[in-house]
Amino acid sequence: MNFRLLSRTLGIICLLFSIAMLFSLPWAHPSLGWRKHLDLPVGPTFEWQGFLALLGSSLIAATVGGALYLAGREAKGQQLFRKEAMATVGLSWVLATILGALPYLLSGTHSAPNVPISIVDALFESQSGFSTTGATILTDLEDPQLVPHCILFWRSSTHFLGGLGIVVLLVAILGQGAGGKAMMRAEITGPTKDSQFSRMQKTASVFASIYILLNLILAILYWLCGMSLFDALCHAFGTLATGGFSTYNASLGHFESSLIEYITIVFMILAGTNFALLLFVSIGKPDRMWNDPEWRVYIAILLLVSAGVFGFGWWSQDFPDVSSAVRDSLFQVVSIMTTTGYGTHNYDQWNNFGRGVLILLMFVGGCAGSTGGGMKVIRHVLLAKILRLELELSYHPRVVRPLRLGNLTIDDSSLRKHILVYFGLVAAIFACSWLVLITIEPDRQWLSTSRAVAAGDLLDQKLIDCASAIAATLHNIGPGYGVIGPTENYADFAPWSKLLFVFLMMLGRLEMFSILVLFVPAFWRKI
Amino acid sequence: MNFRLLSRTLGIICLLFSIAMLFSLPWAHPSLGWRKHLDLPVGPTFEWQGFLALLGSSLIAATVGGALYLAGREAKGQQLFRKEAMATVGLSWVLATILGALPYLLSGTHSAPNVPISIVDALFESQSGFSTTGATILTDLEDPQLVPHCILFWRSSTHFLGGLGIVVLLVAILGQGAGGKAMMRAEITGPTKDSQFSRMQKTASVFASIYILLNLILAILYWLCGMSLFDALCHAFGTLATGGFSTYNASLGHFESSLIEYITIVFMILAGTNFALLLFVSIGKPDRMWNDPEWRVYIAILLLVSAGVFGFGWWSQDFPDVSSAVRDSLFQVVSIMTTTGYGTHNYDQWNNFGRGVLILLMFVGGCAGSTGGGMKVIRHVLLAKILRLELELSYHPRVVRPLRLGNLTIDDSSLRKHILVYFGLVAAIFACSWLVLITIEPDRQWLSTSRAVAAGDLLDQKLIDCASAIAATLHNIGPGYGVIGPTENYADFAPWSKLLFVFLMMLGRLEMFSILVLFVPAFWRKI
Repeated sequence: MNFRLLSRTLGIICLLFSIAMLFSLPWAHPSLGWRKHLDLPVGPTFEWQGFLALLGSSLIAATVGGALYLAGREAKGQQLFRKEAMATVGLSWVLATILGALPYLLSGTHSAPNVPISIVDALFESQSGFSTTGATILTDLEDPQLVPHCILFWRSSTHFLGGLGIVVLLVAILGQGAGGKAMMRAEITGPTKDSQFSRMQKTASVFASIYILLNLILAILYWLCGMSLFDALCHAFGTLATGGFSTYNASLGHFESSLIEYITIVFMILAGTNFALLLFVSIGKPDRMWNDPEWRVYIAILLLVSAGVFGFGWWSQDFPDVSSAVRDSLFQVVSIMTTTGYGTHNYDQWNNFGRGVLILLMFVGGCAGSTGGGMKVIRHVLLAKILRLELELSYHPRVVRPLRLGNLTIDDSSLRKHILVYFGLVAAIFACSWLVLITIEPDRQWLSTSRAVAAGDLLDQKLIDCASAIAATLHNIGPGYGVIGPTENYADFAPWSKLLFVFLMMLGRLEMFSILVLFVPAFWRKI
Repeated sequence: MNFRLLSRTLGIICLLFSIAMLFSLPWAHPSLGWRKHLDLPVGPTFEWQGFLALLGSSLIAATVGGALYLAGREAKGQQLFRKEAMATVGLSWVLATILGALPYLLSGTHSAPNVPISIVDALFESQSGFSTTGATILTDLEDPQLVPHCILFWRSSTHFLGGLGIVVLLVAILGQGAGGKAMMRAEITGPTKDSQFSRMQKTASVFASIYILLNLILAILYWLCGMSLFDALCHAFGTLATGGFSTYNASLGHFESSLIEYITIVFMILAGTNFALLLFVSIGKPDRMWNDPEWRVYIAILLLVSAGVFGFGWWSQDFPDVSSAVRDSLFQVVSIMTTTGYGTHNYDQWNNFGRGVLILLMFVGGCAGSTGGGMKVIRHVLLAKILRLELELSYHPRVVRPLRLGNLTIDDSSLRKHILVYFGLVAAIFACSWLVLITIEPDRQWLSTSRAVAAGDLLDQKLIDCASAIAATLHNIGPGYGVIGPTENYADFAPWSKLLFVFLMMLGRLEMFSILVLFVPAFWRKI
């Protein structure tokens, strides 16, 4: 392990970070005119505290970054090898979580009236932002006496930065897992004579541009729909990063506008699409998107499940009228599958098919190479193909059939193994975290509700709520069921449970390995 | 596919089956003196109906068997190739389920007062017996006006026959999956010059002898503990097959005897042990068992989880006193992990750790090469090793490390793949069945209980109860949570849900592939 190089790289990231924090400063002053439709008395002192907190956090980030940079300034070489790259990804995420939590803590943000935010809560909110999960512990976003406006903007910025990090780090540089890698290798070649390293840098900057451009377009569209500039930017950040932080307690449902919801649906679908395909569309080759096997399955799942949710929901009278039934089922299915987690409707009150299918969708996720979390469509496609081949192999042991994806033959045995290992890993992490969570989390939340009567009931609720909480954080979705349903939040969990969620969000966002290796002593040894 | 050979083989199995039914006949006559402690008025007419039902079913089985045998009498060759073997295993299980359901139907058994057993219920009870699941739809076993005694004996015999089928067919002939196969290859070689086929036949008969001997020993022990001969045999069948059918509504808890419970614990552990290891013990090489890596993990899991259940249970005051705490936690952990499913205690009222860990144990199961169902310990051991190797590979891509099991190096890439595919398959089947079950099963059961108050509660209960029902049937355990908890049964499920359970029990028992291939058209084509 080249520790000096690692330190220098992390230092640069911290310095960039300290600059990013400054962008939230302009939103501190109430006279700037944003959020003019809110007629609440804004406490200028509290707002200034938020301003100073951001400035202070930025200075701290700059100091830490400078120190790390200086410690590693004599590093030999430029090239990050695999180990250094993995350590950089993992550790920069840990650093970002800690630095991102500072503004919440320093500004005296309150998670509820008379409850100043705790260190664990701040870490949770920060990680939830960077991992583009969108789970929150803030119980009231709309009271300017609890959360300063500039902190609210910082909160949404963490989505933007997290999404950008995914695009740059994972999509472009690491190729986001073998599934994405196989896609990338096949899709992005071109007659270039650059070295691999500089080509990656170029790819990364192109992807970053697409991402930023989409954010701008969506913000303008929102603004044209009547949102304030502040709301438009914050919600654009939440949508394109597939995050889900809103600036209102009722999430996107606050605006009560079908137009906004349909626009959001379109952009959530785009955010869950492989950025390589968006690149092809932007250079005038949309047929590459229509013909992409992963994208076709992705769209097919969205449409079929929405139709199912609409059908069963209509039959069970979950919706008041046809237009809202179409909109709500489409919105919630897209929101959960792309792991955004915006809510317009309390899906926790739906029929069993609707509830059940949404839980399963949590395990699907967006396309590889997108900002969407989850396990990714491509892995499910490949798993289904592998299982079908294995079924045939069980009675024709000598048959040799390559794995096909569209017109592409992927005959990479390490890819097959990767897919299967990934499913095994997710199952193992899910099972272990669930057992830990139901054990360490006190029953308080389930006892205090008026809903619980007999002991059996609340226990059953706890088991399923905790399972949905694990799925919602590991796959970076946000809302789950019951106590963390679309109208609820994570505030009432015990601190240690929140730390578990912080870990799971990071694990899910970085596709397991980059975080897990940090705990392997042999990983840190010099060889 | 050699259809004639297939038909002849199935014919022989049916003929053996018709003989097996005759063994239940002697238990029909009340004057034989069994169950003398029951002082209930026994209806001789009803009992005779049971007698005639068994006789009739035996004749039907003989007729079907004879017809199949005659249809295939001109088959060429003796040797079953892979396809014929798989088809035989799958179809004989289907045939057994149908023939095994006849006695229930013909005898006019009642699943509840004034509710004659339906065809679906009879199929469920029959499959539950043969697959050694032990889930029941009979609400009252102790009323001789509802279930004739000879039918009750037939019910337990299906466990015995199912267990024998597993031992002979899967353990000895097919080696029960690649995990077991790798064990078998290493363990059972010896300096024999027999052909592979005759060695397999010999192994099968040795294993069958061990199985029958253990049944006899346990029945005698039970009898010495004060059970009637009838109860002793029925419970021995239920224990050694890791089934779980009892002749009492309170299951094994009826006897209220710690001695019986401890004896049962020992024999459940033996039933969940690889029969190859029991063979080594019987020929005076017990060290082969102590040193077996799978067995050590199996025992370690049993002890650690029992200790955990005891600790958390004691802390949460789930148990009245220490001795019953030790006994109940050990008994329930062994009962669930070996997939037996006997109940002595309502674990559905335990604390969250206890409930959660039992759900996870449902996915572990016994050792490969035992009558225990589930996914088998060896697969989990190998999965853990594979995941650890992959974690190392993620930062040392060029490291080559073989997969080790004890002193054995298993460097079989097809074995690695098999393990991973199996986990993927179980996850896929579990997810799909769960979605189907919660959709097709009406909410009635969860609405009618006095426990449910608000709509949210009963839905949460249904989701977790259905998940436990899928796990309990797919892994051949029996009881689950909530409406199918240890004090409940499967009677209230809708007929189509019961058919799904029948399918899942068969799927789980035959390790997925033998049943799934039956639905592949290409499997049936001649090549």
